[in-house]
Order: sequence, then structure tokens, then C-alpha cells
Amino acid sequence: MNSPKALVFDVFGTVVDWRGTIIREGERLGKAKRLKVDWAQFADSWRAGYAPAMGRVRSGELPWTPLDRLHRMILDQLLEQFEIRNLGETEKDNFNRVWHRLSPWPDSIGGLTRLRRKFVLATLSNGNVALLVNMAKHAGLPWDCILSAELVKQYKPAQAVYQMAASLLDVRPEEVVMVAAHKDDLRAAQQAGLRTAFVPRPLEHGPGRGADPGPHTGFDLVAPDFFDLASQFGA
Amino acid sequence: MNSPKALVFDVFGTVVDWRGTIIREGERLGKAKRLKVDWAQFADSWRAGYAPAMGRVRSGELPWTPLDRLHRMILDQLLEQFEIRNLGETEKDNFNRVWHRLSPWPDSIGGLTRLRRKFVLATLSNGNVALLVNMAKHAGLPWDCILSAELVKQYKPAQAVYQMAASLLDVRPEEVVMVAAHKDDLRAAQQAGLRTAFVPRPLEHGPGRGADPGPHTGFDLVAPDFFDLASQFGA
Repeated sequence: MNSPKALVFDVFGTVVDWRGTIIREGERLGKAKRLKVDWAQFADSWRAGYAPAMGRVRSGELPWTPLDRLHRMILDQLLEQFEIRNLGETEKDNFNRVWHRLSPWPDSIGGLTRLRRKFVLATLSNGNVALLVNMAKHAGLPWDCILSAELVKQYKPAQAVYQMAASLLDVRPEEVVMVAAHKDDLRAAQQAGLRTAFVPRPLEHGPGRGADPGPHTGFDLVAPDFFDLASQFGA
Repeated sequence: MNSPKALVFDVFGTVVDWRGTIIREGERLGKAKRLKVDWAQFADSWRAGYAPAMGRVRSGELPWTPLDRLHRMILDQLLEQFEIRNLGETEKDNFNRVWHRLSPWPDSIGGLTRLRRKFVLATLSNGNVALLVNMAKHAGLPWDCILSAELVKQYKPAQAVYQMAASLLDVRPEEVVMVAAHKDDLRAAQQAGLRTAFVPRPLEHGPGRGADPGPHTGFDLVAPDFFDLASQFGA
């Protein structure tokens, strides 16, 4: 691969550990509010609501809705389903913002810091801008630029999202590498002319669940973590 | 003023010294290419072409055109006017990107670094995203987020630009402070409901020219530099 100019990153699961963080914060909340909840199941259910919620936006059933609001819609259903009935509005809003406080994988900050010396680094996430800004500030993620599906009001894998990244960074699509732990994201990026780097995250869905299934082929690059990704790019 | 959540910054003249940098790079170019040019006059003419060029976009005479391209249109005219005829395309393109390499005022990085501990800091500039990203990387400006007129395809002082900042940062307009050395920018921000901080930059147009004229009143805050701005905000 010719040296790229910019690397754009999927965030949830690729850069940060949504499941581990939600379980941790859930357990803390559960203790404070005397709840009996399986927080691993709660985290998985929250994330499972994500694709259908985006689907309702994509189909036009919902108008454009930022991810914070979709997360809240799913959360409200889950609070019913898990019979959690003693949270006030401030507590609900704060718990919904756990997505702003997700912890990076152990290699994320070190790897990004090395890569940033050589390339422009941007998010390219379905998370809304405020969510991504707050997350970066909280976790210390060293982005050069926050790019979000919100900027084109369409969710990945819509082609417009990937095209927007190249356009706003003023580089050709083939000068951009999409980095993700999810093959459907990378395949859509390829269709838009971007290069791709697959970073499997076998712990994303919990111990023993494994990385995104199927052969790890068809991408410009596969790296076990961001340190290795930086080494492969000479950074 | 209640404590704000985000500070958004005008960039050219407020955070960086366009005139000094263009003169410096112009002199270097002039030496290499044996040019006899008054680079201070050249810099002033380049900047003077900015408002009319944006006016052509605002009036609809030109479709949306990112600032890099407007800068290049003005540069091409100036190269004629100053009878500079020995630059190749790569040299012209590189000189046009001097706007990506502008030097910060002496207090900019230190002041922003203090402010960033307490607030979300974003650009809110007519510069296009790539220009602002490259400038931040080159100068080490510690932004949390790059916001640009390009995201709404309208130039300041259009209300849509200021509204976009509050919307993407997911805060109310009155929770955002616009920081600028230019009163027209601040007045437009006020119309959109933002708070305002005026930071006069008496050297923007060269020694002896003075800051934006008229009384420094009508703003929530006036600070002589970013260190003082940080102190006034308790940062």
C-alpha cells in the first residue's frame, strides 16, 4: 500500500471497550441503587438495540436522530425490560452518557500516539460529534479531527459517510485508510475507494466470543492491535 | 457569565498570525526565486481579497467553495499583479498552503492548554476542515474538535455557522463562548445566542495599525490575551 495521508477509525469496539465499561458502570449503579441486574446481559442488549434503531433512521421511519438519542430510546426500553424503576431523569441521562466515557483498549492510546506523528487521525463513527468529543477528552484519545456520521446525517455503512471523510480531509479516497474491527464497515469503506485495515477485537463481545467471524482476508492490512498497526505503517 | 461548556475560536488573526507568517515565508520564497516583492503588501493584499471572495460565494455568484480554493484564486491574481511569473504549479500550491502553516500568537498554545482542562475547545473558522486540521498539527494547537463553516457550506457571519457549533457540541447556544479578535464575528455570534469574548490583537494588521477599532464594549468579556482569558475563566 502506498503511504496514506489519513487514518480514520471506527470507534465502538475498535478503539474503545463498550461492553466492559457498561458492565463496570452498571455494577456501580446497581450497588448504589440496590438493583439485581445481569450487567453483561444489559450491555449486550443495549448494543443489540443499536442496529435496529439505526435501521429505523435508514428506512426513514425516524428522521435523522443522533446516536445519543437512539441510545436513550433503547435504554428506556431496557429499564422497563430489566424492571429498573428507581432511576430519576438525571440518573438516566448520566447512565446514557456512559457511551461518552468508554475505556480505550490497552493498546489504543499508545498506538494512536505513534500513528499521529505520521498521519492525520480522525474518528469515523456513527457516534454523534458531542459523544466523540467527550469520549476523547475523557479517555485522552489523541484525534486530529472528529468526523461523524452526524455530519452527513446518514449512518455507516452509507457511502456518504466514507466519502465525507476524504472530502473534508481534502485527500483522495485511496489516501485514506479505514481502521475497524468490523468487516462490514471495512467492505463499505472499500466500495467508497478507501484502503482498509482490519484490527480484530476478540474481546469486544466478551471472553470466548471471538473476533468478527470469517476469514480475515480481503483487506489491505490486518493487525492484532494498534501498536502492530503503527509498526506496519513505519510509525 | 455562568460557566460555559464550550469555547469556540475564530482562528485567522485571533489564534494565529497570518500576516507575520506570510511575510516570513514570502521572504524565503523571494530569496529562493530571486523575487523583488514587498511581502507585507503582498500579505495584506492576500487577506484583503478574502472578504470579496467570500462575498461572491455568499451572493451565489460562486457555488460553495472551500477557503483553500478562494485563497488560490486570490493568489493567482496577486502573482499577476506582483509580476511573479517563475513559480511552477507545485510551488504555487505549496505557497497557497502557507495558510496551513500559520504561527500561533505567543500566548495561544499556553492559554488554550489551560482552557482545555476546563472546557471543550473548538475552532469556529471560515477555514476549511483540512486547513484547520493541518494548521493544528503543524502548530500544536490543542483543539478538542475542528468546526468549520465548511460543515454547513456557508461562511461566517451566517447564523447557520454559529448554530451548527452549539448543535454539534450538543449544548445550548448560551453555553458556548465565541472568542474572536473581530467584533463583527462576535456580534453575529451574539445574534445566534452565543456568549462572546473579545481578544484584541493589535498586531494582526502589522505594527502601529491597532486592534479592531471602536469601543471594546458590548461583549461578555474582554481579555488582552489567552492567558488572561484562562484566568478570567478560572482555568
